[in-house]
Amino acid sequence: MTAAEPVTAALVIIGNEILSGRTRDANLPHLARELNERGIRLVEARVVSDDEGAIIEAVNALRARCTYVFTTGGIGPTHDDITAEAIAKAFGVTLMRDAEAVRRLESHYEPGQLNAARLRMADVPEGAALVDNPVSRAPGFRMENVYVLAGVPTIMRAMLDGVLLELVGGRPLLSRTVTCWLGEGTLAEGLGQIQERHPDVSIGSYPHFRAGRFGVSLVLRADDPWLLGAATEDVAVLVRSHGEEPQVTEGEPPLADDAG
Amino acid sequence: MTAAEPVTAALVIIGNEILSGRTRDANLPHLARELNERGIRLVEARVVSDDEGAIIEAVNALRARCTYVFTTGGIGPTHDDITAEAIAKAFGVTLMRDAEAVRRLESHYEPGQLNAARLRMADVPEGAALVDNPVSRAPGFRMENVYVLAGVPTIMRAMLDGVLLELVGGRPLLSRTVTCWLGEGTLAEGLGQIQERHPDVSIGSYPHFRAGRFGVSLVLRADDPWLLGAATEDVAVLVRSHGEEPQVTEGEPPLADDAG
Repeated sequence: MTAAEPVTAALVIIGNEILSGRTRDANLPHLARELNERGIRLVEARVVSDDEGAIIEAVNALRARCTYVFTTGGIGPTHDDITAEAIAKAFGVTLMRDAEAVRRLESHYEPGQLNAARLRMADVPEGAALVDNPVSRAPGFRMENVYVLAGVPTIMRAMLDGVLLELVGGRPLLSRTVTCWLGEGTLAEGLGQIQERHPDVSIGSYPHFRAGRFGVSLVLRADDPWLLGAATEDVAVLVRSHGEEPQVTEGEPPLADDAG
Repeated sequence: MTAAEPVTAALVIIGNEILSGRTRDANLPHLARELNERGIRLVEARVVSDDEGAIIEAVNALRARCTYVFTTGGIGPTHDDITAEAIAKAFGVTLMRDAEAVRRLESHYEPGQLNAARLRMADVPEGAALVDNPVSRAPGFRMENVYVLAGVPTIMRAMLDGVLLELVGGRPLLSRTVTCWLGEGTLAEGLGQIQERHPDVSIGSYPHFRAGRFGVSLVLRADDPWLLGAATEDVAVLVRSHGEEPQVTEGEPPLADDAG
């Protein structure tokens, strides 16, 4: 949409608990919105199990093609926390105990509580830079363009707040949403024509089905406010031509839980 | 865990709205639990954008290594619904209008409503078998081991109910959860030893942080009830040795929203 290369990101969610359906990930929507505001587009996410090979494959595939990669999960003190070791292997370096990370852990735990298992949380790949953890001290880390964050959402968000200050973003993506109670099939042909007329605006059509009735949210995204406004007006005219009054709201609508 | 090959599955979530943070996926946890009950393990999930190359890459990578692959999203009537076309290309076949799918759409829409855009929902890759849609008729489809389902959760679940009847599962994975108010680092060393003693039981440690206090859910999973019971007892003994009374519950605990 601009001459400059788009700034992109990918997320690797590490954890059997997501794949078993036990836990519903809350980090992806938060990360996506924070990045969006800074003009960084989340282009792919993968959920992998607590398996070294799976983590290495996902991280190496994504770090080669995205500006930034984030991982969440697997950096605690227990046997199933293998992210740091996997990242070291993905980069072909060794895992080292970081003296500053040890100091942070020492400042957090009562005497006698910083056992061998907890000290593992000070092990990072050689060459990594620490990421602050204002909640429970045990740090995340950055290895080149890969940010390794905690999985617990409170801690992940606190870590991300610091990380966001150092990311270089692009032009923020602006968005507008047009909602109406029409089946998306009714609008599809006209919408496709509008998309063709406005190639620099991305138009998404998201149907919903509530109380036996179909409706649709049409979300328009662009980094140019003028182009966005022109395309939105075209969509509003299309909706009116089908006898419905469109509801136009600025920005991405509030998080849809999409529970159907 | 058993002599037989494990039955595995992967999920490809298709949709810019998930990657923008607009919509929070609800299909993964539902699919994971339904599969788990049938002894099918979800081993990876990917969220990709409405981009043909991204869909093809994810589907081809995962269908080669998993027993089953499911996709959700992108099978509606609008310009951004490109899943059927992408699946056809992934399999190297052409997209064809399916006569039975047309009949189903004709039975659903009022005269004059089945326009050219909606008829696109009858296009499936050559050789695909239809998947019933009891909600709004427009079918999903199966291509070899790849099931292509709707993204709207109500419709996805209705489609999946039918699909589940034809899947061949493995031994169901049983699980038990031990919860206590201890930092996971306190338990980590003992837990690692228990994991070593019980290699056929997978032990996951999931910390939570609420009201300024750390707790942990230890989830044990195995397909053998005796092995599961023995490992659970060891974990309960470990928790008691740290002065806490463990709470042991059968099965996966209710869906944790993990909002921190």
